[in-house]
Amino acid sequence: MTLERLHIDALTAILGDKGIVAQAGMEAYETGARYDRGRAAAVLRPRTTAEVSAAVAYCVRHAIPLIPQSGNTGLVSGSTPDASGNEAVLSLDRLSAGMDLDLDNRSVRVDAGMRLSELNGRLEEHGLFFPIDLGADPRIGGMVATNTGGSRFLKYGDVRRNTLGLTVVLADEQGSVLDLQNHLRKDNTGVDWKQLFIGTSGAFGIVTECVLNLEPLPRQVATALLVPASGAHVLPLLRAMEERLGAYLSAFEGMSANAVKAAFAHVPSLRNPFQGGQVPDYVILAEISRTWAPREGEQPLDAVLEATLAEIWELPAAPLADALPGPPQEIWALRHCLSEGVKHLGKLIAFDLSFRRGDIMAFCDRMRADMPAKFPGITICDFGHIGDGGVHFNLVVPKDSHLLQDETFESRLRDWVIETAVGEYDGSFSAEHAIGRRNQAFYDRYTPEKQKHMAAGLKALTSPARLGSVRFGSVEKEKTGARS
Amino acid sequence: MTLERLHIDALTAILGDKGIVAQAGMEAYETGARYDRGRAAAVLRPRTTAEVSAAVAYCVRHAIPLIPQSGNTGLVSGSTPDASGNEAVLSLDRLSAGMDLDLDNRSVRVDAGMRLSELNGRLEEHGLFFPIDLGADPRIGGMVATNTGGSRFLKYGDVRRNTLGLTVVLADEQGSVLDLQNHLRKDNTGVDWKQLFIGTSGAFGIVTECVLNLEPLPRQVATALLVPASGAHVLPLLRAMEERLGAYLSAFEGMSANAVKAAFAHVPSLRNPFQGGQVPDYVILAEISRTWAPREGEQPLDAVLEATLAEIWELPAAPLADALPGPPQEIWALRHCLSEGVKHLGKLIAFDLSFRRGDIMAFCDRMRADMPAKFPGITICDFGHIGDGGVHFNLVVPKDSHLLQDETFESRLRDWVIETAVGEYDGSFSAEHAIGRRNQAFYDRYTPEKQKHMAAGLKALTSPARLGSVRFGSVEKEKTGARS
Repeated sequence: MTLERLHIDALTAILGDKGIVAQAGMEAYETGARYDRGRAAAVLRPRTTAEVSAAVAYCVRHAIPLIPQSGNTGLVSGSTPDASGNEAVLSLDRLSAGMDLDLDNRSVRVDAGMRLSELNGRLEEHGLFFPIDLGADPRIGGMVATNTGGSRFLKYGDVRRNTLGLTVVLADEQGSVLDLQNHLRKDNTGVDWKQLFIGTSGAFGIVTECVLNLEPLPRQVATALLVPASGAHVLPLLRAMEERLGAYLSAFEGMSANAVKAAFAHVPSLRNPFQGGQVPDYVILAEISRTWAPREGEQPLDAVLEATLAEIWELPAAPLADALPGPPQEIWALRHCLSEGVKHLGKLIAFDLSFRRGDIMAFCDRMRADMPAKFPGITICDFGHIGDGGVHFNLVVPKDSHLLQDETFESRLRDWVIETAVGEYDGSFSAEHAIGRRNQAFYDRYTPEKQKHMAAGLKALTSPARLGSVRFGSVEKEKTGARS
Repeated sequence: MTLERLHIDALTAILGDKGIVAQAGMEAYETGARYDRGRAAAVLRPRTTAEVSAAVAYCVRHAIPLIPQSGNTGLVSGSTPDASGNEAVLSLDRLSAGMDLDLDNRSVRVDAGMRLSELNGRLEEHGLFFPIDLGADPRIGGMVATNTGGSRFLKYGDVRRNTLGLTVVLADEQGSVLDLQNHLRKDNTGVDWKQLFIGTSGAFGIVTECVLNLEPLPRQVATALLVPASGAHVLPLLRAMEERLGAYLSAFEGMSANAVKAAFAHVPSLRNPFQGGQVPDYVILAEISRTWAPREGEQPLDAVLEATLAEIWELPAAPLADALPGPPQEIWALRHCLSEGVKHLGKLIAFDLSFRRGDIMAFCDRMRADMPAKFPGITICDFGHIGDGGVHFNLVVPKDSHLLQDETFESRLRDWVIETAVGEYDGSFSAEHAIGRRNQAFYDRYTPEKQKHMAAGLKALTSPARLGSVRFGSVEKEKTGARS
């Protein structure tokens, strides 16, 4: 089912012929990056904030629910339509050309539909980058809507920290445009409205333009694979590195043996650097970096890393069992192949959790201890961002497991993992993927009533119409009337 | 006028004898750090979040307006009562003992009434600190409510960046407590509610507990006074330093000649390091730092600074005219004496502005050009945080100036400066002091109607009763009924 001819004609008048896809060609917009396939009433492709505003106003007045989509690389079904065929996708893929660089301010204004790779490609000649490092290549608006973190959060923080301003279109009858672009780092003249549109999955407004903080590109990098003396030594090792390397430390990524072995097994180009090919129980990828060119008289970065590791080695109760320095490209290749490797082991059930840093290993140990009795045959292939508390807690079910015959299995497993993470460890059920349809039930379960009520109020204040895949507060209160 | 006996008795039952000051002893709570003196109906001094909640619930039910006060070091009359004698101060000075340090997580939970100096004193033995560097010594809750920045924002960011969680008491009939403490760095499971209580001057809720990110203490520091080739070379100099020093760069503070001369003139202990005592037109305080102890084989930090300055010196169109390295304590002493020195020149009229970094010097030049004709005899003594766009734009009127006889003078001056900063340069009228009573008129003037309307809605959603000195949205909509 697609939109009535009447609406298609009206939206074509607003967006032009290329601004709307209503029959063939909608598949890419209807299909999630990892899960799910929905059906869109139409796909709207505005080129400017003004076109977004006009299209939104039209859709709100005619009760056409909108799903903003900006990159569609997310893993929680946040930017694809449901199966009803009633929801129109509002894609930012044509709102992607504009960019104004301010070198003095070390910031850039960019259309929200630009890809991260394109932005960083354009910034490279200026020695700058937007420092959110991800496996995927999303568009900027989607990164803002989900507040992505990535592998170098430890040094640079998340999208929230690096967003100076936004332009947002609200889903009200006017398609109101909020200009929250002042390009300032310091401004305390009221509510910092942009915070409400960061990380809320597009429910309160459609981000159309972004002003971003930029950082100098690293010009020197040194990496090593570190083997902690035991799981209990992971945090002491991190603290010892932080103490000795300060702002040099740009990544401290943990990888379980199961994940590493899966990568070696399924990606033949990876070199196994461990003695006799024996993968240790847990491995850390440590990266240090400097943003300036090598300087005469200055110790090379490899030597800095070597010297600090030697210091740590000699600590009483040394947290380090082994260290294998290696070229950054090779070492990161292993990290980037973990997902791919794990996927080949069987059916993947993925969790994006976060904890206080001290609780990560305890949680994973607890799961390793209890899993065999509760869900036999499941392999735990966790890896993640130990430096900032995020864990990609991935479970693999062998393709021939009887569990897969049980219709309740996956939801029982998800409930148990998340109840343990949130209920017992005070962790988060979504560290950096945000909510999306796949986490709606957990939002509903774990959000206190008071906050749900306030979120519903916020929704009514900003974008009272149906917008986005996530329901904040009561669905009943959102305008869901039939189309006129 | 103080509260009726009935209310005093009831609040004494909630807070204990020491929890309420109702006659003598209110002066310190009624007097602003720089401006103004109000009259309090009473001063409430709860020791716990539960006591805050109970006291707030009582006051809301009896229509007693509350002014939260946490340190009272602000400069915009944000935390003192008005002259009516109707407002009760809710001070956090007794909610100041609790602190739970999590070394693995590099974070601390602290009662909101703790002083910054006490917190950092307690953290020092662990090699950590809360990295917001200020001239004053506020309490943490007030820092959160105003989102203070300070002199090392360039490296560490503001309070917002370093706040992981809050507990907030809302001004509703229940004195609702929002527990927003999950101690996590990564969490995208809905609205990040704490953002609404940061920088909004206590209007939406009373911050009672804070979870803060901590940073390793610097163990090596090098500083220099730099003389840019001209005002137009200040930003190129900053960019050259950022490119060559990256995360080492921890301060880049600008000081005008007038401010520096005033400090030398009024603080005899300061050493004037400039050749022949000739203060240049503009001076930069540059600081670089490392968080680790000096290491064998590593170039000392003084040598790093010297080498980078030598590189910058040899650039074509070198932005640097002179550089005077010196001991950090001596160099910071000059920076910290600027306020004191400027105050002695006459009547001080202070502005806390911020700009895109490239606009600061242009704005100051514009003011220097136009001031003599518009407001003759006024001295501009600006200094500030060039690295992050903040400027303390201080004007001094000689005590014998005829301008001071003119009742409209100060408001005409303020209107002109702020209209130029905000209207022409798209800057902020409050970089880091937040709003307070003194900026209310500018909030009303420069906030778009849509945002004012949304702020009023937010106020109704969170703390519908009278709370704090700032009016977000319509005063009419706030409950202001007479006491029962």
